[in-house]
Amino acid sequence: MEFIPSGTVTSPEGFHAGATCAGIKKRDDKALDLGVLFSEVPCVAAAVFTNNRIKAAPVILSRRRLVGGRALAAVVNSGCANACTGRRGLKDAAKMADLAAEGLGILPEDVLVASTGVIGKRLPVRRIQDSIDQIILSRDGGHELARAIMTTDTIPKETAVAVEAGESTFVIGGIAKGSGMIHPDLATLLCLLATDAAVDIGFLRLALRRAADSSFNMVSIDGDTSPNDMVLIMANGLAGNEPITEQSELAGVFQQALDRACIFLAKCVARDGEGASRMIEVTVGGAPDITQARLAARAVVSSPLVKAAVHGSDPNWGRIMAAVGRSGVKVVESKIDLYIGDVCVVSAGRPLPFSRRGLKRILSGSEVPITLQLNMGTAAATAWGCNLSEEYVTINSEYTT
Amino acid sequence: MEFIPSGTVTSPEGFHAGATCAGIKKRDDKALDLGVLFSEVPCVAAAVFTNNRIKAAPVILSRRRLVGGRALAAVVNSGCANACTGRRGLKDAAKMADLAAEGLGILPEDVLVASTGVIGKRLPVRRIQDSIDQIILSRDGGHELARAIMTTDTIPKETAVAVEAGESTFVIGGIAKGSGMIHPDLATLLCLLATDAAVDIGFLRLALRRAADSSFNMVSIDGDTSPNDMVLIMANGLAGNEPITEQSELAGVFQQALDRACIFLAKCVARDGEGASRMIEVTVGGAPDITQARLAARAVVSSPLVKAAVHGSDPNWGRIMAAVGRSGVKVVESKIDLYIGDVCVVSAGRPLPFSRRGLKRILSGSEVPITLQLNMGTAAATAWGCNLSEEYVTINSEYTT
Repeated sequence: MEFIPSGTVTSPEGFHAGATCAGIKKRDDKALDLGVLFSEVPCVAAAVFTNNRIKAAPVILSRRRLVGGRALAAVVNSGCANACTGRRGLKDAAKMADLAAEGLGILPEDVLVASTGVIGKRLPVRRIQDSIDQIILSRDGGHELARAIMTTDTIPKETAVAVEAGESTFVIGGIAKGSGMIHPDLATLLCLLATDAAVDIGFLRLALRRAADSSFNMVSIDGDTSPNDMVLIMANGLAGNEPITEQSELAGVFQQALDRACIFLAKCVARDGEGASRMIEVTVGGAPDITQARLAARAVVSSPLVKAAVHGSDPNWGRIMAAVGRSGVKVVESKIDLYIGDVCVVSAGRPLPFSRRGLKRILSGSEVPITLQLNMGTAAATAWGCNLSEEYVTINSEYTT
Repeated sequence: MEFIPSGTVTSPEGFHAGATCAGIKKRDDKALDLGVLFSEVPCVAAAVFTNNRIKAAPVILSRRRLVGGRALAAVVNSGCANACTGRRGLKDAAKMADLAAEGLGILPEDVLVASTGVIGKRLPVRRIQDSIDQIILSRDGGHELARAIMTTDTIPKETAVAVEAGESTFVIGGIAKGSGMIHPDLATLLCLLATDAAVDIGFLRLALRRAADSSFNMVSIDGDTSPNDMVLIMANGLAGNEPITEQSELAGVFQQALDRACIFLAKCVARDGEGASRMIEVTVGGAPDITQARLAARAVVSSPLVKAAVHGSDPNWGRIMAAVGRSGVKVVESKIDLYIGDVCVVSAGRPLPFSRRGLKRILSGSEVPITLQLNMGTAAATAWGCNLSEEYVTINSEYTT
């Protein structure tokens, strides 16, 4: 199992993609903002959607279309979320799928839709109609598509993992967009995954949920979530393997590869958090179970005060203790060990002396590892986030203006 | 029932307070940082403490001492939280109470302790010992005490409410400190309340919990909580009324006055959030029950994206919808009405056209009212918060450095 250099969502066999500038994005009219992912052959498809009760039209539409577990293409736009747009929004989303289907010569029912951008504005369907024909699909069009789904992201997020397992070889590729409005416990962000492995629909759904739980659901940028969050996977079976089920020999390695791709993308999202310059990686060990380990790790990585302290390279470790204390996990102060990088600052609940300068150096790195050992059990989990910067506030106070 | 001009925690009969500079605060050595609240006669006393699993030594000590429901004094410091300090911290807190008791000529068991400031540093007991005698108690010393508990607060927070009910007259006064690390669902911040009403201990505990639930527990500055949060009330009975119980005629008016004092202080805390220039007041109506109304109101007022949008006077109302959608409350999009100020921007889930300029004016006010009507029931709740500014980040990235 290895990462493919410059791998992307079109790295697996039979996937094509492309993007264009439809003028949906407001600020920069030259930016790509409309794209398509297409498979030569029908795919088994699954998704994880936002838990937000306010669901965007594309989420409602795609969820409905995925009941059968089948798809051939996905059409995606940035610049407009098509959320809080009521029935008209649903019609607009369906129209967007119709337009893509027409161009591809397939049924609208086989087209999934995803949108990201400003909430509460109607989708400019006319602009989409006028420009969707300009999209040229290609086998390395994943790179274009990765750029077309960006909003406040500063870099495209792409990966692909190649697996050789016995006689089978397959690839899982993916792209994601993230930045603001990313929160654990929800499907989070926009992520399109593709694989040429043949996968049973039941197992695909299960594997995607598991992968999302240990990757995207462990990322926190600002504690908010969006009505548009969606993680989608399409499996076209061109690798020629027997369809993988939960019982297959390949099940383990498929899950591992999917986890790896998703964690890679999740870390890209954390690193590129709005206004962020540092990734924070919080690992909690010694928890009674995985649920509590995750809860504790997410509480620390989501804490505005911890994030602000990392931003200032301030070794204010008390905030980490306070965050784990309010996480809802039954921690016992006198059992906790806390490490910042490899420096133990709290041992069995007692503060240890440390070199302020050394700790500031660790906190100034591009990746800041924080490790908590709760000493209450054996479960562990890792969560990713970023520093909270003045720039985050600036970006988010001017989003629609 | 009316607010007393320049009212404070020593406005009720028989309460004295004072403060001094013990040099516990690091940045400004001239600042008041140690103070005492004292009652001429023994008080019935109750408190609400932080729900954080990591509890500071003063919280542990005061909780233990309040089991009997009695107190004569409280000694408070800022500049050091005495949290995450283990057994030594407990000894230090007890020593601080001993020193206060000695000066007042009372038993240490009758002295409560509260601390606020940096976590993980030992209390400088020596400095407290050297300066506690400088504290001069007076009948209007509440003003000094209010300043002595400030950390990143920019203004002292004080109030007093006078009640005339039939033949009875009594006063409830209080002071609070807040700013960062304030979060709903927890006892939040530091607040000292005093009253000359005679109150039964069972009712006093109940009334304080209720008042905290509708005031301090509805304030959100940054979503974090501290190991030191404490709301304390002392009732000395000098008003001469029959002790108020849940069944008393005076129960309702006492609760109302206590609520009013707490809500006043809670709003002061929200208004003075770290780096804040605007108070946000979110009212949720039409909820199925009070728990859900509170949950929804707090989710909106806590949302970093909503807070950042208000900071930029950006009428990005979609973020309000997204926040209520992820609150956990079972909202139905097509039933929601949303008002910013008196402008309806969403009616039955449908966006209405609005004057961008008019909305920006409302969002630029010192108080920004947001109202959500869920149309799912009859319960309502209000929560208070503040805008998220670049200054918040600056303050919190340099706290211990």
